[in-house]
Order: sequence, then C-alpha cells, then structure tokens
Amino acid sequence: MSETRARRTRGGGGAARRAERTAVRIEAAKFITRNTPNLEYLSEEALEIIEANAETVLEEVGVNFVDNPAALQRWRDAGATVHGERVHIPRGLARKLCATAPGSFTQHARNPERNVEVGGKGLVLAPVYGPPFVRDAAGGRRYATLEDFQKFVKLGYMSKWLHHSGGTVCEPTDVPVNKRHLDMLMAHMTLSDKPFMGSVTEPVRAQDSVEMCDILFGGLNDRTVMTSLININSPLTFDSTMMGALEIYAAANQACIISPFIVGGAMAPVSVIGTLTQVLAEVMAGVAYSQIIRPGAPVIMGAFVTSIDMNSGAPTFGTPEASQITYGAGQLARRLGLPYRSAGSFCGSKLPDAQAAYETANSLNAGLLSGVNFMLHACGWLEGGLVSSFEKFVMDADQLGILHSMAAGVAHDENAQALDAIREVGPGGHYLGCAHTQANFKNAFWRTDLLDYKPFETWQDEGAQDTVALAARRVEKLLGDYQQPALDPAIKEALDAYVTEKKASMPDAFI
Amino acid sequence: MSETRARRTRGGGGAARRAERTAVRIEAAKFITRNTPNLEYLSEEALEIIEANAETVLEEVGVNFVDNPAALQRWRDAGATVHGERVHIPRGLARKLCATAPGSFTQHARNPERNVEVGGKGLVLAPVYGPPFVRDAAGGRRYATLEDFQKFVKLGYMSKWLHHSGGTVCEPTDVPVNKRHLDMLMAHMTLSDKPFMGSVTEPVRAQDSVEMCDILFGGLNDRTVMTSLININSPLTFDSTMMGALEIYAAANQACIISPFIVGGAMAPVSVIGTLTQVLAEVMAGVAYSQIIRPGAPVIMGAFVTSIDMNSGAPTFGTPEASQITYGAGQLARRLGLPYRSAGSFCGSKLPDAQAAYETANSLNAGLLSGVNFMLHACGWLEGGLVSSFEKFVMDADQLGILHSMAAGVAHDENAQALDAIREVGPGGHYLGCAHTQANFKNAFWRTDLLDYKPFETWQDEGAQDTVALAARRVEKLLGDYQQPALDPAIKEALDAYVTEKKASMPDAFI
Repeated sequence: MSETRARRTRGGGGAARRAERTAVRIEAAKFITRNTPNLEYLSEEALEIIEANAETVLEEVGVNFVDNPAALQRWRDAGATVHGERVHIPRGLARKLCATAPGSFTQHARNPERNVEVGGKGLVLAPVYGPPFVRDAAGGRRYATLEDFQKFVKLGYMSKWLHHSGGTVCEPTDVPVNKRHLDMLMAHMTLSDKPFMGSVTEPVRAQDSVEMCDILFGGLNDRTVMTSLININSPLTFDSTMMGALEIYAAANQACIISPFIVGGAMAPVSVIGTLTQVLAEVMAGVAYSQIIRPGAPVIMGAFVTSIDMNSGAPTFGTPEASQITYGAGQLARRLGLPYRSAGSFCGSKLPDAQAAYETANSLNAGLLSGVNFMLHACGWLEGGLVSSFEKFVMDADQLGILHSMAAGVAHDENAQALDAIREVGPGGHYLGCAHTQANFKNAFWRTDLLDYKPFETWQDEGAQDTVALAARRVEKLLGDYQQPALDPAIKEALDAYVTEKKASMPDAFI
Repeated sequence: MSETRARRTRGGGGAARRAERTAVRIEAAKFITRNTPNLEYLSEEALEIIEANAETVLEEVGVNFVDNPAALQRWRDAGATVHGERVHIPRGLARKLCATAPGSFTQHARNPERNVEVGGKGLVLAPVYGPPFVRDAAGGRRYATLEDFQKFVKLGYMSKWLHHSGGTVCEPTDVPVNKRHLDMLMAHMTLSDKPFMGSVTEPVRAQDSVEMCDILFGGLNDRTVMTSLININSPLTFDSTMMGALEIYAAANQACIISPFIVGGAMAPVSVIGTLTQVLAEVMAGVAYSQIIRPGAPVIMGAFVTSIDMNSGAPTFGTPEASQITYGAGQLARRLGLPYRSAGSFCGSKLPDAQAAYETANSLNAGLLSGVNFMLHACGWLEGGLVSSFEKFVMDADQLGILHSMAAGVAHDENAQALDAIREVGPGGHYLGCAHTQANFKNAFWRTDLLDYKPFETWQDEGAQDTVALAARRVEKLLGDYQQPALDPAIKEALDAYVTEKKASMPDAFI
C-alpha cells in the first residue's frame, strides 16, 4: 500500500498543480445526444402483451423482499398484499408508483463540464464493472489489485469517449473487503473528475459513499452525484443488501440502476418475450419501491441479460437473443418513461481477440440503436465479466467514438450537400484536391486513435502488430501522459481523514 | 494444373455419386426473409434533398459513357442530350426508365432448393469477391491460386449461413487472365450447387458465362441464373468493359449489381449527403441504361462506399460514415423500388484480429438493419479487400448466423410468453429444469459453430487458443468433410468440352 499512499500524497500537491496548468490538454467528449432514431424492433402488439403479462406476474406470482420487514411494511402501506416475504402488487400499482421517477436527471461531476444527463435522447458511457481478475498482454490473467484499479480509473479519465469513471472497474482484491470501497471511491474522486458510482455491497458502504460525496462536493444539497448499480436477484427476488443500499441512495436523492441480472434459460424463461416480461416485472417492482422510499428519486431501468450456451451452461455474449432483449427492453423503458441501461463491451472470449470484438461490436451497436441512456461496461469487459482487460479497455474505448458519430446523424445543409463539389470535379475527376474537400476533410470522418491503416509493407516492417499489440502501446502511452486533475487540497485532506478514521474503526475482513 | 484436372475427372464420377448419397448431410439455411423493421436513419427531408440533387447532377453535370458509341446513341434515342461522351439526362428521365426494373427477382441455382429471392424483405449472403491475395494462419499472405479458389468455393458450399457461392472469391493468379473466368465458373458450377456470379472483366467473358450457364441449366429460357458485379467508375463514369458486360447480361435477362465503387473523399465528396447524391445519380444512370437494353432486366442498386484515412490516404472500413451511407442508400433503394446491395465483412486490418472483427461486425449490423438484399463480401474479406482470409471466411460465416436470428424476429405466442414457466419457477427458483425450458431450449438460442465458451481452466489446458486458431481447425474440418454435390455427367462433359475448346482458341494472356 505504500506505493499507493505516496501517489496520493503527490496527488494533493505538485501533481494537482501540474494538472491544473495542463488540464486543457485532456480531451473529453460531451455525453451523446442522439439526433437519430432508435430501432423499434418489437411490434406494438408484442409490447402490449409483455406489459399485460408483467402486471399478471406482479399480482399473481409476486416478488420476494428478503430479510427486510420494513420493506414489507412499506409495500403494505402502498397497497400491496404481503404473504410472508412475498409481495403481490395489484395490477397497475407498480406502474403508477413508477410515474414519479424522473424521465431524465443530471448526474453532477466535481468538474461541472463533466456533468452528464441520463435519460431522453442521451447516452452516457461508463467502463467495465466488477471483475475480480485483470489481464494484460505482458502479465496475463491475475487477481486485480488496487494498483490495477487506479490504472483503470486513470485510463477512464484519459479516454475521450468515456463520460463516466464507473464504479468497481475491477475488484481490488488486495484490500480488505470491508474497506476497499473507501479506496475505490478515493480513486474515482481524486484520480478523475468524471462522474462515478457508489458502493452497494453493504448499506453502510452506501452510507460511506454518500458521506464522502458530501465532503467532495462541499455539501450535496440534494444534487445527484452517484449512479449506483442495484442488481435484482432474478427471478423476482430483492435481497436486503441491495435494497438496503437502494434505500440509502434513494433517500439521499442518489441515482440507482435497478437491474435484473439474468442469464437467460437459468434466471428467466428460455424465450425473449418471457424474459422481457420478467425483466419488466422486476424493474417495475424495484423502481416502484425506490419511489416509495422517496418519490422523485432518480432511477434507471436496467437490463443485464445474456443467453446461455446450452452445451456448457456458460453465459454467452453478443448473441442475437441478447440484442433482441436489449431492443425490447429499450422500448419498454421508453413506454415507462424511464432512463435505460443496457449493452456494453460484453464478450465471452478469454482474450481480446476477434471473438471478443465481434461480440462487443454486436452489443455496442444494439446499445446505440436500442436507446440505451447509460451504458455500463462500455469498455474493458473480458471473459464473461471475470476479467478487466487493459488492452480491451482502450480498444473498446476507441470504438465508442463510432457511437458518437452515428448518434450525431448527418448534416444536410448546403455545405453537406456538396453539389458544387460534384459540379467542380465532374465525371472521371477526383475529389482530393477540390475546394469542398479541403474545407471539410478535417472533421469529415471519425478517426481511430488505435487501429491500423498503414500500407502492408510499412505494417510488416514495423513488426506486423495485431490490435492487442497496438493497444498495449496505447495503454502505456495514456498512463505515461496521465496527469491528475486538480482538487482543492482541503477537500483531499478531509477525504483522507474520513477514510483513515473509517478504516481504523473496524478490523480487516476478507470475506 | 494437373492436380486440378484430376479433381475434375473424379468430380464427374465417383465423387458425384458419393455426394448424391450423402447430400442430405449438408446444412444450408434458406435466404433470410426479414420479419423485423429496418432502421430509417435519414429523415424524409434529407432523402428528398438527395433525390432532387441527384436529378440536378444527372441533368447539369451528366455522366460519361466512355468508348461506347452505341450506348450514346441509345441514350439519344431515350431522350438524353449527348455532348461528346457526356450524357445529360433530363430531370425525371432516369427515374422513369428505372421503373421497369423488378423490385425483386429469383436467381435460380442448379439445385432448386438453393434458389434465392433478391429484393423485398430478403437478404442473400455471398462471400468475398476480388482479392488477389490469400492468407491463412499456416502460410501467411501469398498470391492466390486456382487451388485456393476451389477451396473457398468448397468452404462456401459447406457454410450453412451462406446462400450464394459468389464470384471471384479470390483471383486465381496462376491461371492466364483471359482464361481464368472459365476455371472460376467451372468451380462454382461443379464444386457447389449454390447460385453464383458471372465474369465481368470483358464482354466476351460475360458471353462465355451465359453460354456455360446455358449448358449447366439445360437452356436458360430467360431464367436469371447469375448476379454479376458491374462497378461504376466513380465519379459518374461508365467504362466500356463494364457496360459491355452489362449489355450482355441484361440482354440475356441476367442480373447485374450496378454499383458505384467509392472511397469517400477521393471518388465522391467528403460528406455523407454529397456521397449519397452521387451514388444515387450513378445508380439511376446505370439502372436506366440496363432498362434501355432490356426493359424488365433484373438489377440491384449497389453502394460500395468506404471512407478514407486522411492521414495515410488508405480506405477505412467499419466506420460510422460507411454505416451512415449504407443506411441512407438503403432508404434510397427502397424509394426507387430496387433490390439493394451493400455492407459485408469489410475491414482494413491485415490480420483476422480484433480490429478486423470490430470493423466487420459494424458493417454486418448496418447491412442487416439498412435493408440490404444482396450482401456481397459477407465473409472472408481482409486487408481492405486485398486478401481473402481462410480463417476469417469461417469466422465471419459463423457470425452470419446471427443475422438470420435477428431478422427472424421474436415470437409472441403463448409458448413464447412463457407465463406458466414464470408461475412454475417463482421468486428465487431457477429455470434450467422447468417444463418450458426443457421443451424449448434446443432452438431457443443461436449457436456458434466456432466460438469458445469453455471454462477458463479447460480452455487453458487445451492450449489457450484464440479465434484464429479455432478457425484454422474449422477450415481444415470443413474441407475434410467436403463432398462434391452430384451433377449429371453429361452436363459435366459438355462444360469440360466448352472450356477446353475456349482455352484452345486463344493464347495465354497474363495482363
């Protein structure tokens, strides 16, 4: 940990001043606002069937709120019927409760230029969340450490198409499990100025997240400054850990992604419509509960759905069924008036190879066109979410630029029509030198920061590098160029004091 | 060539009989019929501007028909104004001439089960076309030979998601340039029973293609049995080689893909709307000309458009601008009532690595959702079209299965709704053993024939293979399992005689 401590000390002093002087050099794209239509993949008829069946599920089957008597009492008060831990929600009640949730909200970052709007036509991109392992080309696959975590936060900060620093970019397994949220929050708060996520692994850690944000932002004043991931224990089960975190975040007006976590065929029916029915029922119950806690609390409808390889039982990614559910859930979210979270750099591959890229591209494309508003795991995911890959992080992050261009749509003003260029060049001519090309070529095309378009001979002379080799170089360059964004030393000091005190207040726990 | 001859002899005898006995073992998917909507990416306003401007281009700027006095006379007769080789087409004339082109047509295969419908809601998938090089994991990159060509035809035959055998799957550079079309046609006709393309490199070779088809099909009787690629020499130029081939094909009621070949910024304006304007003008002129030759001749509106890397001048693939043009051209094709060809396994990468897969997946996704009816280059393309890759052929071909599932859409009948399964399993249960899962899991999910979903430890014990290594094994297996489809020996004999006579009638030419 000493290496980490040394960095932090530097971070509050010289590095912060250096960062301030050079902050303009960091390129950061604004979150995406779509000028283009979504793909309305499912028919009106199918959507109505799903909505009607989801109400049936909530009323007849119900949902379990486990180990949470207060939640059961709240549901009773709201008009549900409770048997044991089972909550039966009468037709229409959940949807009615969902109506107070905002269709869009601002998540504030400590640098106001990095604020994001979640909902409507927006798309906010955040990195991979949760893997216990990391992989890089040099070191292979290994358990993640806090140093890895900090590197990923830095890469996220340096990635211009990422709008959000994310949450558990990898699990810092070298830090006690009951203390690592403090180090993770500290990394997001001090190594980046992009918005981030809070801890959800215990209600008390959610409370720590709120309190640290209160320090960072100099008082929250009801501003939403975290978007945290609340998974539903599919099918139809809401455990007390996740609901405890949700209760704290909702009460503090912090945003929750309420997200079924489904491997299709295991945690939901082995059909797209059946899965969507369960997803909608689960999300409506969870969102309704958040609105019981605090009407108007910001929430996001999540849908993390993969299919399953019926031979091995392994989850699969980038499949047509996953895309179909992603499209359908987006339509359901819009009809419910909620921001929508889905898709990401999902893949099952063990390596950042062609399989990983096919699977990821399939999901990213579906994410854009299904109207996703918040894309968690937008870069860096590998091996079914077991691994955060350094190389894939920058490979995917480069592809995210494409989503920006696609969502921007196409100008059709006089300059874009280029009729004079066609007149000037005429049959058999070429456009490279014409006035219109000279005036427009700089911004005409999306440009990769990574991929190779060199002539074959040049590429071969330079070592015939594949995408992973190019990405390894880019990881190194970004980390080398990284400069910490400035932070008021008094705030840094107060955060340090908070973390030190919290850590001292409890023994280490590793499970 | 002796090795090749030996194969052919076997092909007409024992191999054909063996193939007949075992023909049922070849899995071949029916061409795709979409049950799902396209993405209407461009606004009505943008489309109207493009259409109006394309008419302006045709009238004011005009198009060149080079070295083709007969074409100029035909245009004069049709009502155009001709100055030198420049044809000025009055507003509305081209669109009016295009109206006789069918919106959809059947391309017959020698095995009627492999017939494809091109147009409407259909999507026909055909392999890579044109590369002078091949690459495989074992041998690297090298000039293509006829043996390579024959292997690719066999792989296409064995690939269940490919509906079409294609054309120049690679250039057999070891065969004289004036004779290789004969060997290529022979390979498609005898090693596969899927539909294929004819030669376009000289009008006389188009004529050979028609005559060989006449033999293969026992008389054409106006049936369309080839879909051949007629590139426009963008900007706005129609050369006599391509037009000569088109004239022969159209007169024989054979289908042509009339396709601008554009590297954006070089052969068209450096803007999406400007490029689409030129594409539409070029296609309308070409299609109109085909209808002057023979009203009702089947044609396809093509759009092969890449952007350019403004640093190196290299063409780029899988970019947002290419996707935008693919979507827009699809909308224009539907408004014109023509079948549409675009997209494919495009990539700029030198290797079948992550770059190649991102780029390819971006293009395949856009191809599906833009309403493409005929996708040339659907698998096997590498290095900007310079290379046909054996491994990438089977990697892409596996991904094509995803397009089938996406296009099929989602059932919403009672079984698909799975309400009883949700009732049966309830909160906290799992679906693997429930009745609905047991009844449906076999066909619930798309299955890869290639990708890896094994547990990490198994994968590692088996050599930690990447996608290319898995693909190399699959190439080997498919070629090992290949059995030639049966063909009437009399037809084979007549084809052999035709080719022998043609080859004897001219000296070898290598340029």
